[in-house]
Amino acid sequence: QVDHFGFDENRTFQQRYLVADQHWKKDNGPILFYTGNEGDITWFCNNTGFMWDVAEELNAMLVFAEHRYYGESLPFGNESFSDSKHLNYLTSEQALADFAVLVDYLKTTIAGAHHSPVIAIGGSYGGMLAAWFRMKYPHVVVGALAASAPIWQFGDLVPCGAFFSIVTNDFKKSGTGCSESIQNSWNAINHLSSTDAGLQWLSRTFHLCSPLKNLQDAAVLKNWLSETWVNLAMVNYPYKADFLQPLPAWPIQEVCKFLKDPSLSDKLLLQNVFQAVNLYYNYTGGASCLDVSETATKNLGQTGWYYQACTEMVMPLCTDGVHDMFEPEKWDFDAFSDECYRLWGVRPRPSWILSMYGGKNISSHSNIIFSNGDLDPWSAGGVTQNITNSLLAIVIPDGAHHLDLRSRNPLDPKSVQQARALEICHMKQWIEEARPSH
Amino acid sequence: QVDHFGFDENRTFQQRYLVADQHWKKDNGPILFYTGNEGDITWFCNNTGFMWDVAEELNAMLVFAEHRYYGESLPFGNESFSDSKHLNYLTSEQALADFAVLVDYLKTTIAGAHHSPVIAIGGSYGGMLAAWFRMKYPHVVVGALAASAPIWQFGDLVPCGAFFSIVTNDFKKSGTGCSESIQNSWNAINHLSSTDAGLQWLSRTFHLCSPLKNLQDAAVLKNWLSETWVNLAMVNYPYKADFLQPLPAWPIQEVCKFLKDPSLSDKLLLQNVFQAVNLYYNYTGGASCLDVSETATKNLGQTGWYYQACTEMVMPLCTDGVHDMFEPEKWDFDAFSDECYRLWGVRPRPSWILSMYGGKNISSHSNIIFSNGDLDPWSAGGVTQNITNSLLAIVIPDGAHHLDLRSRNPLDPKSVQQARALEICHMKQWIEEARPSH
Repeated sequence: QVDHFGFDENRTFQQRYLVADQHWKKDNGPILFYTGNEGDITWFCNNTGFMWDVAEELNAMLVFAEHRYYGESLPFGNESFSDSKHLNYLTSEQALADFAVLVDYLKTTIAGAHHSPVIAIGGSYGGMLAAWFRMKYPHVVVGALAASAPIWQFGDLVPCGAFFSIVTNDFKKSGTGCSESIQNSWNAINHLSSTDAGLQWLSRTFHLCSPLKNLQDAAVLKNWLSETWVNLAMVNYPYKADFLQPLPAWPIQEVCKFLKDPSLSDKLLLQNVFQAVNLYYNYTGGASCLDVSETATKNLGQTGWYYQACTEMVMPLCTDGVHDMFEPEKWDFDAFSDECYRLWGVRPRPSWILSMYGGKNISSHSNIIFSNGDLDPWSAGGVTQNITNSLLAIVIPDGAHHLDLRSRNPLDPKSVQQARALEICHMKQWIEEARPSH
Repeated sequence: QVDHFGFDENRTFQQRYLVADQHWKKDNGPILFYTGNEGDITWFCNNTGFMWDVAEELNAMLVFAEHRYYGESLPFGNESFSDSKHLNYLTSEQALADFAVLVDYLKTTIAGAHHSPVIAIGGSYGGMLAAWFRMKYPHVVVGALAASAPIWQFGDLVPCGAFFSIVTNDFKKSGTGCSESIQNSWNAINHLSSTDAGLQWLSRTFHLCSPLKNLQDAAVLKNWLSETWVNLAMVNYPYKADFLQPLPAWPIQEVCKFLKDPSLSDKLLLQNVFQAVNLYYNYTGGASCLDVSETATKNLGQTGWYYQACTEMVMPLCTDGVHDMFEPEKWDFDAFSDECYRLWGVRPRPSWILSMYGGKNISSHSNIIFSNGDLDPWSAGGVTQNITNSLLAIVIPDGAHHLDLRSRNPLDPKSVQQARALEICHMKQWIEEARPSH
């Protein structure tokens, strides 16, 4: 159903979902249901090894449901992003309704699944969806694992600067002079971008695919660098991995090897910064130039996500250059709203998500685990302390963005092994409690 | 917000709500929030004396919120019912979102209300909304009193015939020969309506405002009679009252005084049936003729409700003439759907409400009282047994449709006095539990 919440638009669309049932115990064995987030579901499926690792132990069926407007689940095909009319059905509420209807459908059409307890699992925005799915549809899922889910990165629930100060700490801890070098790089760029020669030098030094032409382009360069540092903080995994980009183990440590001396001259400092970002964008050595319009894998649906950020998912972020290594930038809702209106013809409603999902007042819910890596900037908006004895927080020291959802790895720190063991323990309990005999 | 669940339609509308704060304890005293149903809120406000009766005891503020598309809360003014485009925002989900946003607004704008615990109270469809409000927005309301709320009158959760068999029992218990007389009346009408003279006789005998012209009109007459018996079952109160119509105490007993002999000839039987319905439509003696297009007060929004029944609120009802006194009529979803399409250009989605609100699988929720009078046909789809120790059922012997929500009355049976006492007891407990110190 394109629109679950209205009856004038009665069209339907094909939602993609993946099923793996080789380990499933047919007579009502559990179902682990991945609440798809802002990207291609096959990519998430391949990056959520945890579910594959536990399927056998839990005798579980795995279902990966693609989020509408991402991957191949486009309500209006190529027209889906054409205007605000077609984008109108891209909301978290519609996505959760898709999931609820899909679970009902699977339970009635798969023989032996009618009484299968279903557990929602998701990471990042998908982790929010997993938590919200349990909150809003507790009759559909017996529990939820919400990994790295910043459900409180809204309104004034958490300080807007916490996010970037975690990023900064990750760099601070990963090498002497590292965060200071980045902090100093902004002014270096500002100096150089004030002249044409400087802009040319920057374009050459950063191997940019399109040369910088003016101050606006230089601002784009700085944004792109900021996002790169943020992404590095998210994927600072303890082993070689390919999530947002192919990267070595502990990539921030690798990056920081180029950023030891913050006192260098502008040009020497920025040459080092180039080495650092080049490691992120060109670890495999295949890139002939760097493109400031891209920061991560194309498996993520940037357009759709930006629309969501411009409507429901308004996450205030800010920097002050004191508690973080970034150029100070206040959270400016009005400017953001104007930009959203210019781009999509819609205005964000920042308080709606609080009215809908309860903000910090969620203690009446149950059976949700919120896991957060302490290296992950998104943990700033996450639940990192137990709320009740069935709304649990697991903090994973040395963990980056939903490290616990990734496949077991010999280089996993003990912390994530323990987190996973605890998660499995609670999932077993939810499954046990859902038995009719209980 | 006209559309809470999409951002393309950004218009707002004025929602009417009534506030009474004379008994309210200003420093976070509780708020009793009436979840308005399908009608004018002032009328519901005047027919929910229970809230007025307990306001002082609980030091509570009363808020009566009007449901969108009813009374004066019309999203598009006079255009609101013009077509399926304008009706698109008439759903229970939008109404609940209105309530959530309204509570948030009241709590932030009324001094001293910021931490006021809010209890949802509603009857009938409004009772469903009260229960669903607690289920979906437990961060907004600490509990709900759902009076005569047939939340299970959907899908195949209860037998479709139970409703009419309760109506029949009410008549059976209220006088010898009563239900049999009604049962026999259908064939009597069928016989008479097969000739023009018979149709004329029926029109005259029933004092109809527009004479019957054909078999179709006779079918309308029978429907109108059926609805009259149903309405009498709903308002079979122990004292003189004016809810759907001004009526004497125990109106079914009064009606049955005319219907003692089911073995009379067609014409004599139907003359008695006229006396019976005339008591319902003309108790005050002011009606010069009876209008088969109306069965109840104009304070109810029939158009809006019929649209809701044709979209989300699909309640299967049926009769078999064996367990009830009505002409047998199967539940025919396809015919119903076609009629909805003809009238509104929309098709009902009968399973959506089950996916959305959980059907019978609601045990993970808390703090909801479901009260039902055992005379009330809507109790057939209600919760009449405790589900958990905080999802409670109260059955009220000798109670009609949400009798407990009405003002105290000297003629109240003990059962409803006890029910109200229990309801107040639980409300106090919810309020107590919501204190920050708890």
